[in-house]
Amino acid sequence: MPRVPVAILGGSGYTAVELIKLLLRHPGAEIAAITSRQDEHIADLHPSLFGRLDVRCEPFDADRLKAKGVQVAFGCLPHGTSMESIPPLLARGIRVVDLSADYRLRDPAVYEQWYKEKHHDRANLKLAVYGLPEIYGDAIDGANLVANPGCYPQTAILGLAPLLAHRLIEPAGIIVDSKSGVSGGGRTPKLGFHFPECNENFAAYGVGTHRHTPEIEQVLTDVAGTPVSVIFTPHMVPMDRGIFSTIYATPTKPVTEAELTELYRSYYAGKMFVRVRTGLPATKDTTGTNYLDVAVKVVRGKVLVLAAEDNLIRGASGVAVQNFNRMFGFPETAGLL
Amino acid sequence: MPRVPVAILGGSGYTAVELIKLLLRHPGAEIAAITSRQDEHIADLHPSLFGRLDVRCEPFDADRLKAKGVQVAFGCLPHGTSMESIPPLLARGIRVVDLSADYRLRDPAVYEQWYKEKHHDRANLKLAVYGLPEIYGDAIDGANLVANPGCYPQTAILGLAPLLAHRLIEPAGIIVDSKSGVSGGGRTPKLGFHFPECNENFAAYGVGTHRHTPEIEQVLTDVAGTPVSVIFTPHMVPMDRGIFSTIYATPTKPVTEAELTELYRSYYAGKMFVRVRTGLPATKDTTGTNYLDVAVKVVRGKVLVLAAEDNLIRGASGVAVQNFNRMFGFPETAGLL
Amino acid sequence: MPRVPVAILGGSGYTAVELIKLLLRHPGAEIAAITSRQDEHIADLHPSLFGRLDVRCEPFDADRLKAKGVQVAFGCLPHGTSMESIPPLLARGIRVVDLSADYRLRDPAVYEQWYKEKHHDRANLKLAVYGLPEIYGDAIDGANLVANPGCYPQTAILGLAPLLAHRLIEPAGIIVDSKSGVSGGGRTPKLGFHFPECNENFAAYGVGTHRHTPEIEQVLTDVAGTPVSVIFTPHMVPMDRGIFSTIYATPTKPVTEAELTELYRSYYAGKMFVRVRTGLPATKDTTGTNYLDVAVKVVRGKVLVLAAEDNLIRGASGVAVQNFNRMFGFPETAGLL
Amino acid sequence: MPRVPVAILGGSGYTAVELIKLLLRHPGAEIAAITSRQDEHIADLHPSLFGRLDVRCEPFDADRLKAKGVQVAFGCLPHGTSMESIPPLLARGIRVVDLSADYRLRDPAVYEQWYKEKHHDRANLKLAVYGLPEIYGDAIDGANLVANPGCYPQTAILGLAPLLAHRLIEPAGIIVDSKSGVSGGGRTPKLGFHFPECNENFAAYGVGTHRHTPEIEQVLTDVAGTPVSVIFTPHMVPMDRGIFSTIYATPTKPVTEAELTELYRSYYAGKMFVRVRTGLPATKDTTGTNYLDVAVKVVRGKVLVLAAEDNLIRGASGVAVQNFNRMFGFPETAGLL
Repeated sequence: MPRVPVAILGGSGYTAVELIKLLLRHPGAEIAAITSRQDEHIADLHPSLFGRLDVRCEPFDADRLKAKGVQVAFGCLPHGTSMESIPPLLARGIRVVDLSADYRLRDPAVYEQWYKEKHHDRANLKLAVYGLPEIYGDAIDGANLVANPGCYPQTAILGLAPLLAHRLIEPAGIIVDSKSGVSGGGRTPKLGFHFPECNENFAAYGVGTHRHTPEIEQVLTDVAGTPVSVIFTPHMVPMDRGIFSTIYATPTKPVTEAELTELYRSYYAGKMFVRVRTGLPATKDTTGTNYLDVAVKVVRGKVLVLAAEDNLIRGASGVAVQNFNRMFGFPETAGLL
Repeated sequence: MPRVPVAILGGSGYTAVELIKLLLRHPGAEIAAITSRQDEHIADLHPSLFGRLDVRCEPFDADRLKAKGVQVAFGCLPHGTSMESIPPLLARGIRVVDLSADYRLRDPAVYEQWYKEKHHDRANLKLAVYGLPEIYGDAIDGANLVANPGCYPQTAILGLAPLLAHRLIEPAGIIVDSKSGVSGGGRTPKLGFHFPECNENFAAYGVGTHRHTPEIEQVLTDVAGTPVSVIFTPHMVPMDRGIFSTIYATPTKPVTEAELTELYRSYYAGKMFVRVRTGLPATKDTTGTNYLDVAVKVVRGKVLVLAAEDNLIRGASGVAVQNFNRMFGFPETAGLL
Repeated sequence: MPRVPVAILGGSGYTAVELIKLLLRHPGAEIAAITSRQDEHIADLHPSLFGRLDVRCEPFDADRLKAKGVQVAFGCLPHGTSMESIPPLLARGIRVVDLSADYRLRDPAVYEQWYKEKHHDRANLKLAVYGLPEIYGDAIDGANLVANPGCYPQTAILGLAPLLAHRLIEPAGIIVDSKSGVSGGGRTPKLGFHFPECNENFAAYGVGTHRHTPEIEQVLTDVAGTPVSVIFTPHMVPMDRGIFSTIYATPTKPVTEAELTELYRSYYAGKMFVRVRTGLPATKDTTGTNYLDVAVKVVRGKVLVLAAEDNLIRGASGVAVQNFNRMFGFPETAGLL
Repeated sequence: MPRVPVAILGGSGYTAVELIKLLLRHPGAEIAAITSRQDEHIADLHPSLFGRLDVRCEPFDADRLKAKGVQVAFGCLPHGTSMESIPPLLARGIRVVDLSADYRLRDPAVYEQWYKEKHHDRANLKLAVYGLPEIYGDAIDGANLVANPGCYPQTAILGLAPLLAHRLIEPAGIIVDSKSGVSGGGRTPKLGFHFPECNENFAAYGVGTHRHTPEIEQVLTDVAGTPVSVIFTPHMVPMDRGIFSTIYATPTKPVTEAELTELYRSYYAGKMFVRVRTGLPATKDTTGTNYLDVAVKVVRGKVLVLAAEDNLIRGASGVAVQNFNRMFGFPETAGLL
């Protein structure tokens, strides 16, 4: 079977290099092009790729990608830039998995409120499917534009979906206290990510203002069928990778840990990448994998959900490949085990 | 002025070595004895002390400590062991700052419920003063037995005290989501603290069962004058030191960040070691110091308190010296700046 | 093509779990059994394997492994124990890749000198092949007992082989200054590997006494055709994985960096897993891979070799799979890219 | 006794904040001014100083510093900038401890060769004293310009001085393999110091070209009375602080570990901050202190020296205070224990 020629847009960051490593191992994909403003061999941008992939980055050019036979592009560009590059690809029949935030929020007004800029591609925004396969599975299969989900939102959404789908918790004021490794901040050097600043340090950031808030709410509102609101507090952990979310919710009726765990198992039956655990999750158990581990506990009348994932794989590039697999008819786990 | 001869009980752990370093710098203390079951020079137990302190550890012997003129003993023993060693000291007129949990909980039944063992020294338990100077200041001055507070509880207590003292938040169901560096687990090697297990990892532990829960509630109930209950969730951060607590409470009436910050400033006026910040605290700003940094935020109708400290200094040995200063008439900051 | 049934002896440590993950991805291997003194499901020993492998550990029993059709066993046992378990397997026609040190040193007297115990299986020792494919390639193919190489030695051996094979450096007194992540110390909790002891710390250990010294010398003597001696100094780096060796040698005649680099490229032509770099290697470029990166420099008349690898993959489990591939006729890179 | 008014030039970096913390604890110093191009309160540049020092940074102005009564300035400026600021201070009778490299190398031609820029202050360069008190003690006392030593050089110089002073090792081709925490790279964000790049990574840098090479050689040549040359290789360790140097030298005659250790003890008798150890040093034993720990070993006929220090304290700000103590008649250890 011929491999699907794929392009990666914006090859210099962490999600790009993780995606490349996953695709190199994928039985059905072939990296046909990598775009970047940096006119360099990919192994000069990412020395770990030396000897593994012989591709020179090229400037973004939709016609040239089309001419190369590219069938799908993975967008690893910053938000704002992404919605400039994607329309010409879709216009040429190239499908897109966009890892930026540009097509995640259905309502452009919400986008503008949280991202502080206008949305310039409302036409395609209407067609975008939110790429969380465990929630929107079938809709992803035929989509031309998949908005790959944010890293934090996946832990909150998959952590809470079974409870909200069954209306077992109050939908307002859910507390999502999340902690992420530093790679979540991207690859651009800044004081906050300078090693001697964030090493041996733990702190919250973006309190009350983090842009993943409306994304979590939008999807959970879909799941619950009623408006859901969260207080989302991100923190930075001195480690490379991993997100851990501790979620606090108020049950609508008395519940037990055993019955909730059973509910989670049943809700995620057949979903290979969500592992319902009886012990406590830990980010390290998911490092380098596409698994999202979740446990549910009852403490003094509150429901606690603990969810862990690798922010670069499950939180970005792994779920992107999972979406690609659905879009191109591969087994959902292809290249991901 | 002659220095006060002090003893350290249980010299092999992390709180002991931090305490020793603080006392070496203290103008009014003199280390007269260090006890340990390990019959070794203190610099063999802690190579960082080489050339700084020439003391050989001795077995615990209350008479011998008395004969050496020891006026106060700092207990760095595990709970359970502590309440065996302390009565003979008190009986000989040696005052005690106990860093274990044995004398923190007023009600022995609560102790037994959470620590799963009988309390063997109910007589002295009645006399113990909880050693959090910002809350129980004057009572500490004349105490013979001071129960030094737990590391986590200080962030929760000092983080919430102004709100509860002014009845600005609901006293039930307060969420305390705390994160600690690994030194909080002590110096005994265990798989959970083995470097390749906890490095590059983030996880919760003791969900719903951590023994600091009743300690937080006891003190906050004192402050509020009404029963306070918390959901306390500790997590382990891959760093040596530091505790960060993110606290979520429901206000009893509409409040603003500005007025709450002002309230905190006023509540902690004159308390040198509590720093009310307008920006976000970070553990690293407190590393190696006795400061506890706190900020209060309002997010979507909830009150968030963020508190940070060094778990070994402010959380243990520093506050012990602060208590010592009060007990022996030194300025509260002596040896701590 | 049917998969080769394999057994893993000693499933509880870090090399075992890495090996399992590699074998799960390997197209030609099937994990038929895992032995351990711990009678537990493998996912209870290694929570990261939850949902990925459904095998319960069993006590070591050569007959039972034979009955299960096991064709090859990977020994992940400590040295000393390994040479007790391996003879009964070989006697039953089960081939072995032994990751312990028991069969690496040809001369049992040298083994006894460095490991301070008698060698109990001299018969099989004579048949063992040192499993470094880049040096002993063909001999591995037909071997029944392969002594998988040590983690440190691979960096020294592959770092120096081209120079010694061409007699370009003095064979005596070569300095090998090596640095390893903490996982190299194994999974048994000890004070030296306790997080708060080794985090934020850097130190040498085993100065002049490390057991990898004679292993490096034995293989380099083979390569050079003349006795080679090294001063080997290991250090521990506060990170999970990775070995970096900085090697200092005295050239026998004037050399240039360019010609040495060319020599390395030619020496390792066709050896996929040795990457000759012109820039400086870094352990992180090799993390999670079977690559060993090497660069050669000339500084003030000395030759410097810099070599980096992942100590658990290239340094142990990855090269074990590479050996397995040769032994069972798979492409050398199968399951390793 | 009145405190000496001091100024800090360039307050935004790591050496400045460490220096400030040391001076706040010093009995004889008073921070009269801090200069910076950043017109901010010092606690906004360094949040850890909040509540500890109420000083706003001011632009550099020699007259203004003079008017404030400043008697000594600590230069925490980058090299090149330093030699622009220091002459006007010296001209006004303000003494200087310069933490940059500008006045360390006696020969401006050597400076220009390694630093790739002209030396603009040859007049003062002639008067500068190299501020390593264990070597140049008395000369520091009366100096008006002290060139504070580099971080790496101190480990090499103090590690090798006893051997070279007694002509016990060959002076040419000594190997100094050094490892430093990331704070040694300064506080300016760069990709190489970006957390996800250098965390969990170990690598060499500046191989054969590091500027501390001639500094080490200049001082050791003074000590030996004969030209000394070194091969110096720095590496970066994923930790905040600490330098560890592993040094390899060839003895000029047979020596034993015991006699060399005795020689070191005798050479450093009375030098409080050099600790001669019989066990192996570790950077963590020196963290936060002005101690430099050293051990000497004999391995297979080579002499190995192992030296450890805190790169920001002993390696920079601590030794600066030690120099200040000598210059102003304080006990050498004032403020440093």
